[in-house]
Amino acid sequence: MRRLNNLTNKNNFMTLDKDFKDLEKKLKVSFVNQDLLVNSCVHCSYLNEHPGFYLEHNERLEFLGDAVLELVVTDHLYRNHPDKSEGELTNWRASLVNANILAEIAQGLGIEEFLLLSKGEEKDKNSKARHFILANAMEAVIGAIYLDQGLEVADMFIEENILSRLPHILKHKLYLDPKTRLQEAAQEHLGVTPIYQVLEESGPDHAKVFKVGVYFNDDMVAVGEGTSKQEAQVAAAENACTVKEW
Amino acid sequence: MRRLNNLTNKNNFMTLDKDFKDLEKKLKVSFVNQDLLVNSCVHCSYLNEHPGFYLEHNERLEFLGDAVLELVVTDHLYRNHPDKSEGELTNWRASLVNANILAEIAQGLGIEEFLLLSKGEEKDKNSKARHFILANAMEAVIGAIYLDQGLEVADMFIEENILSRLPHILKHKLYLDPKTRLQEAAQEHLGVTPIYQVLEESGPDHAKVFKVGVYFNDDMVAVGEGTSKQEAQVAAAENACTVKEW
Repeated sequence: MRRLNNLTNKNNFMTLDKDFKDLEKKLKVSFVNQDLLVNSCVHCSYLNEHPGFYLEHNERLEFLGDAVLELVVTDHLYRNHPDKSEGELTNWRASLVNANILAEIAQGLGIEEFLLLSKGEEKDKNSKARHFILANAMEAVIGAIYLDQGLEVADMFIEENILSRLPHILKHKLYLDPKTRLQEAAQEHLGVTPIYQVLEESGPDHAKVFKVGVYFNDDMVAVGEGTSKQEAQVAAAENACTVKEW
Repeated sequence: MRRLNNLTNKNNFMTLDKDFKDLEKKLKVSFVNQDLLVNSCVHCSYLNEHPGFYLEHNERLEFLGDAVLELVVTDHLYRNHPDKSEGELTNWRASLVNANILAEIAQGLGIEEFLLLSKGEEKDKNSKARHFILANAMEAVIGAIYLDQGLEVADMFIEENILSRLPHILKHKLYLDPKTRLQEAAQEHLGVTPIYQVLEESGPDHAKVFKVGVYFNDDMVAVGEGTSKQEAQVAAAENACTVKEW
């Protein structure tokens, strides 16, 4: 078992109580250079508190992983869907490769507990910031796999963890924006058009929160919140699709 | 010599007077499936006039080639510049992979004469549209090389034709936007700050053209035109850098 124990540097004496062998098992990838995997979990906030840490933060790996992910997904879509236009494939790709899904996949793989964060960020679970930190770490992990193991292994990893979601996305038309999806489904199943109504506006001007309800005829189906009306409508549409199992 | 002669289809009888062997020589790539190369040169306008043509237009190949180009350039930047942040590398990449440069490279490789265009597009040389058609064809050609020859050959092609421009870009700081570049150079060489002045506004409201001059003290160094003040300023800055050989 390899622990990052007792790392000394000019500023800190620390013990990292994370065993990255466990993360390797979850990812089903065995690294030659395990530091690449550790590196993919280093958020910049961590380096602020540990300025002499022996690795840089994960943004360069994220830059690389993002491009690897893009090619693997694009290649897969191109080859497996010869009858689809680049416009459709672009929508499908966007529905597979976005911060929401990547954060969710990172969470599913247990990456969250391996993140190296500042004490402040550590506490801030369930925030929007954590969401993006997770999505970025997911891309950085892909960058690390690519560097350490090559494109083929990265390809297999992406197929298993990301591309495997495509059938679900296509079945539920998740590549459509939620309002369009809800509108199409409501028309198809019930012959109605969803209507959105603001229920509540709260918070100070610079941090408004809108609460919107979405209605079929006079029945409220779901509500959504957001920092703009549009954001709240999208959230409401998303929730309505979930409630209706569309 | 393989000519696309006497292709018959239900709508057209045509002779394509283009020898794609010549394009292969220019690209220094010999295709197993030459149709992929032909395909990369088919603009959608061509299919409007030749609806029964045996190949689709090049937009799917462009979709693929774009992702190949992105990964190859990103990989190269990541490995060869370990001391640079992802922010700097993102700027560098944007200065290497953009419609202007890709159109220029496509032109340099002689791709223009192999484009399959509608009669209308054929005539419309030097237009903005042609510019994007060329840039897109460049990406489609990269997609075709990748599909036919694999990533390694695509990598070599991109290194030779695109990444080879990086030293020039770095030397002249072309990754900075032209106004910033001019400002930095003017400060460094002359200790002055460029000033922009609108010289002329012409055209109807929906198609205005602005002419802007850029001045060092009271001397006009260059002019630029554009459909907005900002666009004209950028063009003027670009021209000033050329005039001054910065």
